[in-house]
Amino acid sequence: MHTFRLWRSDTSSADMSLTLGGNIFVSGSNRGIGLELVKQLAEKTPEDTCIYAGCRTPDGSNAQALRDLAAQHAGKICIVKLEMSDEESIACAVRTVSEKVGAAGLNLLINNAAIAKPAIPGKLCDTSRQDMMEVYETNVAGPFHLTKMFIPLLQKAAASSNQGDEMSCRRSAVINVSTLGASLGMMPESFHIAQLFAYRSSKAAMNMLSCCFAMELKSQKILVMALHPGWVQTDMGGDQAPTSTHDSVQGMLNVMSSLGSKDTASFLDWNGDTLPW
Amino acid sequence: MHTFRLWRSDTSSADMSLTLGGNIFVSGSNRGIGLELVKQLAEKTPEDTCIYAGCRTPDGSNAQALRDLAAQHAGKICIVKLEMSDEESIACAVRTVSEKVGAAGLNLLINNAAIAKPAIPGKLCDTSRQDMMEVYETNVAGPFHLTKMFIPLLQKAAASSNQGDEMSCRRSAVINVSTLGASLGMMPESFHIAQLFAYRSSKAAMNMLSCCFAMELKSQKILVMALHPGWVQTDMGGDQAPTSTHDSVQGMLNVMSSLGSKDTASFLDWNGDTLPW
Repeated sequence: MHTFRLWRSDTSSADMSLTLGGNIFVSGSNRGIGLELVKQLAEKTPEDTCIYAGCRTPDGSNAQALRDLAAQHAGKICIVKLEMSDEESIACAVRTVSEKVGAAGLNLLINNAAIAKPAIPGKLCDTSRQDMMEVYETNVAGPFHLTKMFIPLLQKAAASSNQGDEMSCRRSAVINVSTLGASLGMMPESFHIAQLFAYRSSKAAMNMLSCCFAMELKSQKILVMALHPGWVQTDMGGDQAPTSTHDSVQGMLNVMSSLGSKDTASFLDWNGDTLPW
Repeated sequence: MHTFRLWRSDTSSADMSLTLGGNIFVSGSNRGIGLELVKQLAEKTPEDTCIYAGCRTPDGSNAQALRDLAAQHAGKICIVKLEMSDEESIACAVRTVSEKVGAAGLNLLINNAAIAKPAIPGKLCDTSRQDMMEVYETNVAGPFHLTKMFIPLLQKAAASSNQGDEMSCRRSAVINVSTLGASLGMMPESFHIAQLFAYRSSKAAMNMLSCCFAMELKSQKILVMALHPGWVQTDMGGDQAPTSTHDSVQGMLNVMSSLGSKDTASFLDWNGDTLPW
């Protein structure tokens, strides 16, 4: 049985030495969890790591923090324009990364970009059919296409590893940033905090995609799983959230470092505990 | 623990006397499970029942069987034009039903209409971002909007009942036709039969919506649940399917007849067994 407690803020693990590296792609990296993922990855991974930071408007004012970070870690962070709701933008981002990584391929894809419309609490009366469609396009159809397009690069990384049959995030993996709100098993507890019809539906669908991709890519030694970051102090999570982006991302990276073959198709939180589907 | 066996075809229950009646809406009723639902409901419910049969093209050649059925049960079946991917069509269908049912409201909404693109097996290589969007629009965003628009009519039916606090499909309920393929807990067993990335994702999202609507409408005594019809011999299910539409629908209607307050937010199959999320 799972040992998860609703919206807890304690992270039991201290800062561990990460096993991550190689070529890493993070979507939605100009703010919130995505920005912090790029920051801690840049600080904690070996020097020859390259972090591709997907961002909707690399030149925009809301990407200033990401540009500053990239300047601090020149050569280690590469900003890539990526609009998750635009198929051509996705294809273009994949081409850019493909040219840069070459035969080494892509070791780790973190599907982090997501939107919530309407914002928390996302009541039914405030949610339109159009919200349902827009949220799904960015949170599910976009990551679906990005992941599908990245498979040849993930295969290259997986095949060039000397890890035998063992899977890992250092070898080749797709981490889908999920949410406890996608857990059907925890609906009674979580619904009254935030209804979020459109966001929850999209994330439940994304959990299904995680499992589908995990099954599809298992024989090729590419690990796929869904990771709940906690309820985090971001624009989306709001001020009441109990967990800082720093602690959430520290936990998430520790979990990613510890993942093995047994964890493909799993649904874990940032402390490594299993969540119910 | 659930007692479900994968793709079993036996139905343990004989034809029961149904407790269903009042005003009933069935979407996607021109063929397959929807057509059989309308047929058996027309045959087995009291004479004063009215079945509203939602159908994309009531005048089209693929609605001939539905038109024949409506002619056989004149006054009991009312065909309503409904295109699930068109918001205005949904609004128009709800207005039509609203004018006909008046103060009695709507007792039972069966969200049955759904598409699978690409068809079984729905491999990843055959699935596009556009497929993901189109399937979601018809299978999730449409039923979301239809259900939301029908809430005032469902509330009327629920409020005019003398059943006290007990919920039922005779009083006021939303039945979402789901699939075992939406079960994340059964992914390892079911994935290799059919991958169906787009369809599975949409149905996992729809299961989440079932739970959201169930929580939202519980205090108003409107029952909401997800019902797996089995793997059925329809255009979608294909020739290999072990269960006839007759047996599937007989089981589904028996299950609907037996549902009470404890079953809201549940996920059952056509034999009444609980499926894992």
